[in-house]
This record gives sequence, C-alpha cells and structure tokens, in this order.
Amino acid sequence: MDALRTLLKSAALRYNKLQPHHDQCRELVLAAHEKLLSSSNYRPFGVFSGRPSIPYFVFDLERSVSRPVRPDIFISDSNKFIRAYDELNSLLKSSMDWDQQTATAANAATYTSVMSIACCFDLWQRSSRKTPGTFFEIFMASLLQQVIPAAAFTKHIPLEALLHAPDVTGEDGAVSSLNQTEEDAEKSSVSTDLVIGAPSGKGGIVIPLKITTRERIVQPFAHQRILDAAFGEGSYKSMIVCISETQLDEKTQSVKQVCVPGTVKLFQKYLAPVSALYYCDIPQRYAASDMQRIIPVRSVGDLFKDVAIGYKILEGKK
Amino acid sequence: MDALRTLLKSAALRYNKLQPHHDQCRELVLAAHEKLLSSSNYRPFGVFSGRPSIPYFVFDLERSVSRPVRPDIFISDSNKFIRAYDELNSLLKSSMDWDQQTATAANAATYTSVMSIACCFDLWQRSSRKTPGTFFEIFMASLLQQVIPAAAFTKHIPLEALLHAPDVTGEDGAVSSLNQTEEDAEKSSVSTDLVIGAPSGKGGIVIPLKITTRERIVQPFAHQRILDAAFGEGSYKSMIVCISETQLDEKTQSVKQVCVPGTVKLFQKYLAPVSALYYCDIPQRYAASDMQRIIPVRSVGDLFKDVAIGYKILEGKK
Repeated sequence: MDALRTLLKSAALRYNKLQPHHDQCRELVLAAHEKLLSSSNYRPFGVFSGRPSIPYFVFDLERSVSRPVRPDIFISDSNKFIRAYDELNSLLKSSMDWDQQTATAANAATYTSVMSIACCFDLWQRSSRKTPGTFFEIFMASLLQQVIPAAAFTKHIPLEALLHAPDVTGEDGAVSSLNQTEEDAEKSSVSTDLVIGAPSGKGGIVIPLKITTRERIVQPFAHQRILDAAFGEGSYKSMIVCISETQLDEKTQSVKQVCVPGTVKLFQKYLAPVSALYYCDIPQRYAASDMQRIIPVRSVGDLFKDVAIGYKILEGKK
Repeated sequence: MDALRTLLKSAALRYNKLQPHHDQCRELVLAAHEKLLSSSNYRPFGVFSGRPSIPYFVFDLERSVSRPVRPDIFISDSNKFIRAYDELNSLLKSSMDWDQQTATAANAATYTSVMSIACCFDLWQRSSRKTPGTFFEIFMASLLQQVIPAAAFTKHIPLEALLHAPDVTGEDGAVSSLNQTEEDAEKSSVSTDLVIGAPSGKGGIVIPLKITTRERIVQPFAHQRILDAAFGEGSYKSMIVCISETQLDEKTQSVKQVCVPGTVKLFQKYLAPVSALYYCDIPQRYAASDMQRIIPVRSVGDLFKDVAIGYKILEGKK
C-alpha cells in the first residue's frame, strides 16, 4: 500500500496545483487493479434482489471484505483493463464522437478505476475511509481536463461579495468584513467538489462527486439553490456524479442499493433543479420512469459528452 | 456502562412510543453524572483562544479523554446538579415565568445532563459515536413534553401528497404511487428530529438537534425551505438546537470552537430563514453582532420559553 499511497499523494499534489495529472492517475489505477487481482480473491458475494436481480462480487482477503462490485461493469482482466483505460483516455482527448458503445466502454473503464482504488483501501487500509472519495474527485478532474483542456477548474465558488452586501451585514458591512477571520472567508464560499468555470468568467458547471451520498445528497441541491439566487438561474448547472451507492448485508449475503428517490424528487422540486444525476452503476430504482421524469439519471459515460456540450454552450456565450 | 445502556434503552423505548419518559431520563442522567465524577478525573485541558479566551475542562481516564467541557456551565457537584435538575423540571412543568436567571439555570442543567452522557460514552464506549446525539434528542423531547404536555410530538412531516401531485409524477401518478415501496414512502417525508404539531393539525414547530453540525447544518435550512414551499411560509418554524460544537487539539492542548458563520448566513438568506439557533454553549463567533442581525442565536434556556410562546400562538390559530 505504500507504493499506492505515494502515487496518490503525487496525483493529489498536482491536482491541488490544478496541473494535469492523468499520467499519475494511470499509474495509480493500474497498480491498484493489479494488486487487487494478484493479492486478493474476486468472488461472487450475493445479489441485489431487484427486478431483475443483480449479482454482486467482492474482493476478499482473510477476514476482510471489500465493498460490493458489479461484475458486469468491472473489468477483471488486466490486459483488457489497460486497453480500456487507454481507449477511454484517447477518446476523451480526441473527440466529441460519442455513441452508445463508447459511452458504455467509458463508463466501465471509469467504474473499474474508481472501484479498484476503493477496494484496495477497503482491504488494506480500512481506516482511511475518506480516501476513495478524495481519489474519485482527483480522478474525475483528470478525465474531464482531457475533455476540455482549455477550461479553468476550481473547487470553490466565492460568495464573499454577497455576504458583504448591506442587506446581509448591515450598515457596518465594511467593518465586519475587516474583522472577518480567514476561516470565515473560506466558509463564505460554496465549497463544491469540481467547478468548471465559464470562459466569460461568469457561471459554469458544478460537478459534485459522491461515493456515499445518503446523508449528504442534500448538499448539491442546496448549493444549486444558492447559486441560482446569487448569480441568477442558469448561470451554474450542477451535474451530480455518483458511484457505488450500496451496502453489504453480511448476514443475508445480499446487497442493498442505497437510494432515496422520494428525497431526490423533493429536493429537485423544492430546493433547486440540477441538470442530471450520473452513475457508473445506476441504482435500479433511479432508472424508473417516475424518477426520470423529474430528474434525468444517466451513465458516467454520458457525462463526458454532456460536459463537452455544456462547455461548448458556455464558450458560445463568451 | 451496562446500567447506563439499560436505562437509555428504556428511555428510548418510551420515547419511540411517544410516552412521557422524564423519570427514565432523570435516573439515566444522574447515574452518568455520578459515574463520571466518581470514576474519572475532571481537569483543565486548555483554552479556546478567542477574545476573551475560554477555558475548557475534560474528563480523562487512563489514556481516554472526553470531549471538551465548559466548566462555567457544567455543574460538577453532585448535590448541586441534582438540585438544578429538579428545579429545571419543576420550572418546565409549572410556569411561563422565565427570567434571565431561570434561563441561565435551565441552560446549565441541560448542558450538564447532555454532556454527562456524551462524556461517559467518550470514555467508556467510544465506538457508539451516534449515541450522544440520540440521547440529546430523547432528552430534549422529555424536557419539552413537560413544557407543553398537550402537544403532539413526532419525528417526521409526511410529504407523500406532494410527490403524488400530477406535476411531479406525471399523468400516471396513481400507478407509480401503487408501485411505491415502503422505503420510498418513508423517504418521501421530511425526516427531522423533533416536530411539535400545531393543535389545528396544520404546521408546527420543528426542532432539529445537532451535536456536531459541521457538515449537516445545511439540513435544517433545506428542510425549512421545503416546508415553506410545500405548506406555505410560516406554517412551520424551525428552532435549531446545538451543543458542544468543539474540537480538541491534543497537540497544542487547545480547543477549537467549530463554527461556520458565513455558511449559516448564506443558508439563512438563500435557502430559507429559520427562527433561531439555540446553544447551551454559544460559540463566541456566533454571538457577534453581524451574525445576530441575520439569525438570532440564543441559549437553550431561552428555547423553553420560546417553544412555550410559539405553541401558544399555534393554539390561538386553532
């Protein structure tokens, strides 16, 4: 795991400086995938009892068991995965030429990459609970940078100005702004995951990334509402990207797909509408028509195209 | 700890059945307080370096250290605490006759009760991370039931009807409602902590309870917005109640007051306004005038009076 941690650190360092880091990500992901396949046991675990039911696998090692993995999306052959990974990256760089087949392949390569890191940490460093989520962000940034290399990526949308408006801070707004500590200043921005700024400098695309959203799914909708109120509706679009919303039930040897369709519908209707929800492994319940009518739920393969199109539209507004 | 767990279980059981449970709470709280004072070491830990700086104590035992405790609010003498606890309970039952002195005493008795349980779990059952929060909810319900014994307490506000409205589910709303699973139904309500229903059956007072809000502070504001949109502004009022928003820094032997004034201001302005924030131990930064202008921040001693007044107003609307 030391090698993986070192690679992750170097990718994170470049990401934090907003430098391209796909070479680091490639090395990291392939090492994690190799380690899993060579040092643990990939085996069927149980099913999600939906209609139709969906089989799940896990990686296990002695008494440790990884999170559940979808064998129909996870590429478990080293050579096939390397090929799929490199095809994804050349596709991202070269074209807007996405069809159903390339989107499906891109989705599988992304899923296999993110789950490889997550399962490694499940088996060999369970205490680092947040690392898979951090990697997911770093990794998606590296992929999206290749789709739109000209774009400015950040992680915050500053809202300082809004809070110093007279109606918020009162007449001595200037004074309280001088007294504001650095911590306050940081908190006075909407801290999202990825933000792709519009070329005009106004608005952009917000990409919240979640590995387990259950409690926190409210955040991106609340952020969208604040952005709508602050910058006008349509200035920012949110595309929420999720993966692996599942729970193992060791007692019954089954898998639960964690989803909260009612809550998402409420947020979409009463907080603020986001553009779409993207999943590598769309929960069955979210694919149902009553849900799709309220909020589009698409695959991560579709995300790359949608971001490219979304950015083109922003360029047009410049 | 076995005795404490048994007492907590019996209080929780009665609370879940919405039965009075203050006798169970009294026994539990006094036992926890006694256990802490007799079996651990109450000592100064460090200061929060605000202006003025605030000293904090901890309970420790061998290598375990509890969360930080404010010695100016925590009553560390057994007999004094029993007296304060019983005075609080008779005050809650008997009167709307609150002045600054009774509010301060009520605040200290509440703080001592909640922190006694939390520190016991910190020292003797650290793995039960969520238990102090669960107890906080059970305990506040027991206190508020004494203030307004006639009121109906619940934990959810059902929003089913909203989601089946044609504009949300589309033309086949009836069909999708039939297909809805039980889990969906549960998720289609706003799950708050405490809800005091209005006698008219419409609207009420929502009391979100938080022991560490940092990430989750968005929830009560998002819920308020949904309730405003769904039932009309003013139908539901939220009074957010918090305690112990601190972090220990063992390295520097200091205490950090966790607060996010900028974020709270944004939520209050751009999501939906809540009535007030209540703290047993108000973070220094929240007491500042720029914050108070946007959202009232008061002591938990004030909460009891405010809930009593709020409920009287709801009764008047009946």
